[in-house]
Amino acid sequence: MKVVCIGSGNVATRLCIALKKSGAELLQIWSKQPENAAALAAVVDAEAISVISQVVRSADLYVIAVKDDFIPEMVDALTGVNGLVVHTSGATDINILSSFKLHGVLYPLQTFSKTRPVTFQEVPLCLEAVDIPVMDQLKRIANLLGGPVYEVDSKKRKILHLSAVFACNFVNHLYGIGHDILNKHNLDFEMIRPLIMETAIKVQQDFPSNVQTGPAVRDDEQTMSKHLGLLEDEPQLQEIYRLLSKSIKKTDQ
Amino acid sequence: MKVVCIGSGNVATRLCIALKKSGAELLQIWSKQPENAAALAAVVDAEAISVISQVVRSADLYVIAVKDDFIPEMVDALTGVNGLVVHTSGATDINILSSFKLHGVLYPLQTFSKTRPVTFQEVPLCLEAVDIPVMDQLKRIANLLGGPVYEVDSKKRKILHLSAVFACNFVNHLYGIGHDILNKHNLDFEMIRPLIMETAIKVQQDFPSNVQTGPAVRDDEQTMSKHLGLLEDEPQLQEIYRLLSKSIKKTDQ
Repeated sequence: MKVVCIGSGNVATRLCIALKKSGAELLQIWSKQPENAAALAAVVDAEAISVISQVVRSADLYVIAVKDDFIPEMVDALTGVNGLVVHTSGATDINILSSFKLHGVLYPLQTFSKTRPVTFQEVPLCLEAVDIPVMDQLKRIANLLGGPVYEVDSKKRKILHLSAVFACNFVNHLYGIGHDILNKHNLDFEMIRPLIMETAIKVQQDFPSNVQTGPAVRDDEQTMSKHLGLLEDEPQLQEIYRLLSKSIKKTDQ
Repeated sequence: MKVVCIGSGNVATRLCIALKKSGAELLQIWSKQPENAAALAAVVDAEAISVISQVVRSADLYVIAVKDDFIPEMVDALTGVNGLVVHTSGATDINILSSFKLHGVLYPLQTFSKTRPVTFQEVPLCLEAVDIPVMDQLKRIANLLGGPVYEVDSKKRKILHLSAVFACNFVNHLYGIGHDILNKHNLDFEMIRPLIMETAIKVQQDFPSNVQTGPAVRDDEQTMSKHLGLLEDEPQLQEIYRLLSKSIKKTDQ
């Protein structure tokens, strides 16, 4: 399978490496920034390009893994390709690709970083296609990567993406707030890393509502009021503390 | 070492089991609810009591592991004991125990559940004492349990506890919101469990601000506005979404 990847960010990087490992031939990596294209291209033994009109027409699979806002521009630039064109966006409808005869969505439901390798065997892949032959082709690609595979239409994929913003992006931000609070008082973030791990492990076998702990679910007003006092210089953190505590109490009722 | 435990909740349960394993003799478990005292007492081979005046005076260690609001009441009830009296509360000052000659704090910086066993080797223990012999005694107990040990005064312990509320309690609530969003659309929480794990793993070696992903940090207004649209029936979730996105954008600047 010959692959062209449009994009060189976190998703593009991890997906290209996994495709390469599974035996695919990476023809080209495109990025607006030549140095980013070159960096990924070197890893997966592909040609780096930064002029979109240079994309070859002979690939079997075109992966569009760019910031959502730039997908339309990439679609225009790829006019006339005959291979299967997929995007990897959780929040973008499949219809954005409807000008291509063969098109689909391959949404990896995972958070990627350029530095940390991700085992694709553990990455759920959400597939969408408008006809059975393309879905079969997507499934073959997904099976090469090895993770759990789900068929998810655009509407449900957007829900998954929204849910992931809460359970991943917002969660990481709360880790960051925890870090900043510690840092401000010369306490080491290392002290709460085991807690962060255990909190994630607890919901691997159980549901979050069954394992909720802390002052809000205990209705421990005294502790909550002390905490708000400790945050008196941080009105935005107080606001987050109040809102999430209120939401926990409401959920528990 | 002879131990009496006041309380039978998550912290009491895990701590008593770990103390028992490390060779301590559990004399009594007190709980207001006789059935809760009995359940834990059976596991650690202790006497179950629900009348606080029945606490023996002969123990080496009295662990007060009850809801913070009830600590003063327990302190009054234990008047006259000569053993070391500790509480396990993150948010409570050591001074609350000052009527005891030997007193200290043993705060396990971890989230516990009654059902999931916790390896105490991975639980950071935060110790506080007002004199060196008691601190040495606390360290001996902590070393029996096997995890990393920190000396942390009351002021810093409260900061740790506050930080833990963000990085654990609020995080679990966000998992719960993710679950509810999926559930409402007949999507399986299992689909985002790998994402939850990876999000926690990423900050074990790195700092959260270095690995933040998602629409807010990308300043992807289009996706954020779509997400708010999907939450139009859930004003409180919209509020949380807006506030945390704003906070992420502010942090990134």
